[in-house]
Amino acid sequence: MADVSTQFLTFRDDAPFRLRSGGELPEVTIAYETWGELNEDRSNAILLFHALSGSHHACGRNPEIPGVGDLWQPEMHNGWWEDLIGPGKALDTDRYFIICANYLGGCYGSTGPASDDPRTGKPYGGSFPQVTAADQVDFQARLLDSLGIGTLHATVGPSVGGLVALSFATLLPDRVQRVISIASGYKTTVLNRLILFEQILAIENDPFFNGGNYYDNGRPDYGLALARMISHKTFVHIDAFERRARRDVIPEKEMLAWYKVRDQFQSYMLAQGKKFVKRFDANTYLRIIDLWSHFNPTGEASSDTSAKPLERCAAADQKWLVFSIDSDFCFYPEEQAELVTHLREAGVDPMHITVHSDKGHDSFLLEPHLYTPHIQWILAQ
Amino acid sequence: MADVSTQFLTFRDDAPFRLRSGGELPEVTIAYETWGELNEDRSNAILLFHALSGSHHACGRNPEIPGVGDLWQPEMHNGWWEDLIGPGKALDTDRYFIICANYLGGCYGSTGPASDDPRTGKPYGGSFPQVTAADQVDFQARLLDSLGIGTLHATVGPSVGGLVALSFATLLPDRVQRVISIASGYKTTVLNRLILFEQILAIENDPFFNGGNYYDNGRPDYGLALARMISHKTFVHIDAFERRARRDVIPEKEMLAWYKVRDQFQSYMLAQGKKFVKRFDANTYLRIIDLWSHFNPTGEASSDTSAKPLERCAAADQKWLVFSIDSDFCFYPEEQAELVTHLREAGVDPMHITVHSDKGHDSFLLEPHLYTPHIQWILAQ
Repeated sequence: MADVSTQFLTFRDDAPFRLRSGGELPEVTIAYETWGELNEDRSNAILLFHALSGSHHACGRNPEIPGVGDLWQPEMHNGWWEDLIGPGKALDTDRYFIICANYLGGCYGSTGPASDDPRTGKPYGGSFPQVTAADQVDFQARLLDSLGIGTLHATVGPSVGGLVALSFATLLPDRVQRVISIASGYKTTVLNRLILFEQILAIENDPFFNGGNYYDNGRPDYGLALARMISHKTFVHIDAFERRARRDVIPEKEMLAWYKVRDQFQSYMLAQGKKFVKRFDANTYLRIIDLWSHFNPTGEASSDTSAKPLERCAAADQKWLVFSIDSDFCFYPEEQAELVTHLREAGVDPMHITVHSDKGHDSFLLEPHLYTPHIQWILAQ
Repeated sequence: MADVSTQFLTFRDDAPFRLRSGGELPEVTIAYETWGELNEDRSNAILLFHALSGSHHACGRNPEIPGVGDLWQPEMHNGWWEDLIGPGKALDTDRYFIICANYLGGCYGSTGPASDDPRTGKPYGGSFPQVTAADQVDFQARLLDSLGIGTLHATVGPSVGGLVALSFATLLPDRVQRVISIASGYKTTVLNRLILFEQILAIENDPFFNGGNYYDNGRPDYGLALARMISHKTFVHIDAFERRARRDVIPEKEMLAWYKVRDQFQSYMLAQGKKFVKRFDANTYLRIIDLWSHFNPTGEASSDTSAKPLERCAAADQKWLVFSIDSDFCFYPEEQAELVTHLREAGVDPMHITVHSDKGHDSFLLEPHLYTPHIQWILAQ
């Protein structure tokens, strides 16, 4: 990706950050990257929101993030959406200034549970507050303010990023002109809340978890690995497991120690879990799945109906593009249909596109050509 | 159920029991109950196989099982299939002699991981061998031999019990005339293997698990509770969760201690987990889900095609009745369709009935009227 210059930046804000569900951080740091150039009237910015376990590093090569240490594993060094960002691509760096920030509570440079609490000089750990999508909006709005960006040309959010994009659109309706929501939803389903709760308990049950205060004494790797396995089955289309498990032969010594693997599926899943714990922090994982589990735009906007918060989007004349993936087991197509229904009720006329794929939820990472034409089209309107 | 006399019995066999995947038990005890009378030519016996976490106590009232202690919770005292067993009911005690035995590896009276190993005088714990459906067939065949029963009038197996019924039918084809498989399958799906693996890890990750040797030092309750929660979501139709969670308000003090419950769903699921750990043993749970996870009738019968083992059923002129539940998220209707396809390929002409229910997999426990007419019909043929 030599043709896209990546800037890794941090913005530190010394003003206290008050969280919507209670708690306050005395200061916050926002880790982010940008691609392309901000134009003179600062009107060409696109804000990209990453997925649950993603990072701000969406494009280019970044071999190190200061302070992140071993979590910045080699598999992270290339951007997660390289095929969609660059000259002539879906997010065209010749025309737009693209920004992606690590979430508040994250583990890749933004203030999170592993950061030192300036009040104690020790990591926040379990004392790091609960964060909501609305908090992420407040957090990233500070970044936009610091860059002098008033209204965004667009926001783009795949997966959990789509939930944050939705909050941004309803809470700051005049600060975004176009919203692109990919394989995301409107309100977290009962099934997903159950699956997310299992993951919370998997981590909390780990003997090393210690209420989140584990940075000095070994990490809850088994719990986080199990959580990842639980979620992983929703990311990949079920038909692909058999193929993948046969193809990706995992050497026995690479396994986590506690379980005697009995078949290829188990070894494949354990390898997924093991790979993940090297690159992610359990406390961050808990914060983001909690955000997802309790996501509720109606509540955030203090509204009494589902369409109400979206009426602000209509009033601001936002354009919406909603993608569904027909084989998605994580955010089911019914969830995007619900979002589209509420948008229509509110008076927004969204474009709703279903891509057909055998890759499941992960399609948004793997098949750029399915998304590029419509993204280019709406950005050019 | 004063009209059905229940006999709780144990049969102890001093001959060593060799397991098909290796290992040997020096002796086995089979806990079972019977209802009705065995006729003179011993031709009216029906063998019922219980589900994953069920017991042999399918009908009547049984307030105590010797040696089982606290696990025999009050919720177990009434039989799990009372509405289907009795005079004039689906399994008519005026006509048939019904037998149900606790599985090998069980925790309700049959030899299992909590039993003392006579070679050491201590509980088997982690040294208890892996058990397969074929082992369960061998185990229960010993019981039939002891009762002098050659050929069964029928076997009936709901859920995991249907897998054991299938093994019985293919391994001992001449010992059963009718097979009733309810909400079960032919070969464990990838999705179920993943969900079962999550449950294995949830238990193995518990700090108290200690490789299965925990009987002296506190049980892996958190792990077993999490495993139950993971499976529970597949038993109940997803639409029912919202209703149930609203209705069944759980007092906060009833919760497991480690997690601060944030909503009604979480509290409902935790209560399910907590209730379960009082009545079940984690080592038994592991043995039975392992049986399910690796269930493979083709392998058991040393066959090279899926239909092959079922050809024995055709040769023995077995009659099959297969029930599907349209809302089943545990054994999906596609799984019974696969079983039926293989039966047809093998030359058995099964009766395949889909019941329509909003109760999901649990329908077989809750809605006897949906099953009774066809069960009565096939038993009378």
